[in-house]
Amino acid sequence: LRLGIGDDAALVKARYGHDIILTTDMSIEGVHFTCRLHPPRSVGHRALARSLSDIAAMGGTPRYALVSLALARRTTRAWVEDFYRGVAALAKRFGVALVGGDTALVAGRTMVDVIVAGEVPCGRALRRSGARPGDQIYVSGRLGLSALGLKVLRGAALPARSTATEAVRMHLYPEPRCALGKYLSERRMASALMDISDGLSLDLARLCEASDVGACLEVERLPGPRLEDRRKSLALALEGGEDYQLLFTVPASKVRQVPSHFRGVPLSLIGRIEQRRGVRLAGPDGRLKPLPSGGWDYFRAS
Amino acid sequence: LRLGIGDDAALVKARYGHDIILTTDMSIEGVHFTCRLHPPRSVGHRALARSLSDIAAMGGTPRYALVSLALARRTTRAWVEDFYRGVAALAKRFGVALVGGDTALVAGRTMVDVIVAGEVPCGRALRRSGARPGDQIYVSGRLGLSALGLKVLRGAALPARSTATEAVRMHLYPEPRCALGKYLSERRMASALMDISDGLSLDLARLCEASDVGACLEVERLPGPRLEDRRKSLALALEGGEDYQLLFTVPASKVRQVPSHFRGVPLSLIGRIEQRRGVRLAGPDGRLKPLPSGGWDYFRAS
Repeated sequence: LRLGIGDDAALVKARYGHDIILTTDMSIEGVHFTCRLHPPRSVGHRALARSLSDIAAMGGTPRYALVSLALARRTTRAWVEDFYRGVAALAKRFGVALVGGDTALVAGRTMVDVIVAGEVPCGRALRRSGARPGDQIYVSGRLGLSALGLKVLRGAALPARSTATEAVRMHLYPEPRCALGKYLSERRMASALMDISDGLSLDLARLCEASDVGACLEVERLPGPRLEDRRKSLALALEGGEDYQLLFTVPASKVRQVPSHFRGVPLSLIGRIEQRRGVRLAGPDGRLKPLPSGGWDYFRAS
Repeated sequence: LRLGIGDDAALVKARYGHDIILTTDMSIEGVHFTCRLHPPRSVGHRALARSLSDIAAMGGTPRYALVSLALARRTTRAWVEDFYRGVAALAKRFGVALVGGDTALVAGRTMVDVIVAGEVPCGRALRRSGARPGDQIYVSGRLGLSALGLKVLRGAALPARSTATEAVRMHLYPEPRCALGKYLSERRMASALMDISDGLSLDLARLCEASDVGACLEVERLPGPRLEDRRKSLALALEGGEDYQLLFTVPASKVRQVPSHFRGVPLSLIGRIEQRRGVRLAGPDGRLKPLPSGGWDYFRAS
């Protein structure tokens, strides 16, 4: 970092032999968070986490962040301070320097745009487009926890206490998988990589489209929330967004190198890439059915 | 550019021997633009111009842009297309690649956040903090035209036709001074540089604060709009924001190197930096009076 907040722009050092990764994500009151359910610290955490996850999804290391904040007039100073505490705590833990941003008061709702610049050694960025037929499909962690956590916060679901606690924590304070992304890039293990922000079914369809392939998922292997109702767990795993887990494909020759866990987070083999387009779901009886790419699409949701 | 829109993030090349400049600026309906007065093409142009101007203000060259767009639900497809035409046309002219962004629909008003990454040779970035007592103060172009143009659009001012046309054009399609910023950096001519986005009086006060100095401006030299009422012209030159002209200081030893025009844009000597804090205004009779740092401050304006 050469020059941070206070001048016309931020001046940062580019590392030799590295490419720059740039990403930006908006968090909008009423769309991505509400003032009733989300404490300001969580709003700040989640806004930054979304962009950090994009860097993880390229196999890169986040370095700098800028925060643009359009504040609803009714916002209190305490809210803004707690919001920045949430941003700053996550930034610090990931070694990210806050170098700038923009602030304004608005008549409408609060809106945040977080920009993160990261780096990756030249030629080592992992893309969505590298999956090939025969590759195995993996995800990190559990899927659908964030969506379940939101239901719990809304009083619309009442799972066992340990599951509820975990789900709410994952919803309010999701953990970007930057170390895993970097690991997959450094070991040249993954043929394609992306983060799951809008739900597995939608994001896997995107990966398949970018790679010009199809996929088959095994229902029994999907790591959904621990619920008594297996159908609900499956729906959450497939459709629930905002988990920010990583979705990656591994060529068959490298599958044996994939550890079962990475820093305590399980890595689950959930299916395989196929030549035939579309995503299909294989049930416990081996029957195949097509999976509509649902997921959490803002435009559809509205 | 290695990878643009469509993956998790944009991957861009860092040039050896260069630092990266990062900047972000929001443009908010009702604050920075209105749908009644500003055609969508102008909204796009101005949103990008704000960030390009920040790069100019560091003496850098803009390279990549990302656009986050939170669209009010009532927005038409035609509006969005024209908005992007405005962004794309300006980006093309400045050699800037659009590499990503984010889009969402919102219940409230339209909001844009434009992020620009630029570059500058290591050690050559120009800051606000380099002004020293005895340095001469310059501005590019005419100040207050954008504010006058807004008045014309609102029907609140009726200057001579040529002035009105120029003012409206400068309001709707301001021209970032990137070539000038780069020129000042390359020739090592300026001791401090910034862009005037919030009005001369406010931005000069910021430059003085960053440099820990004061300034004295000569009223007669301020290049305001050509109006019959000299007082109105002066007020616009001092207080009118969004001109995106450059404000820079030049050590006395280099003043003779400053051209009268740069690519058709006049460079005006308007005063000098002093040790004594605060900004003062010297009238035609030589009388000095303190200049309150007014300018266009969003928080004050609201």
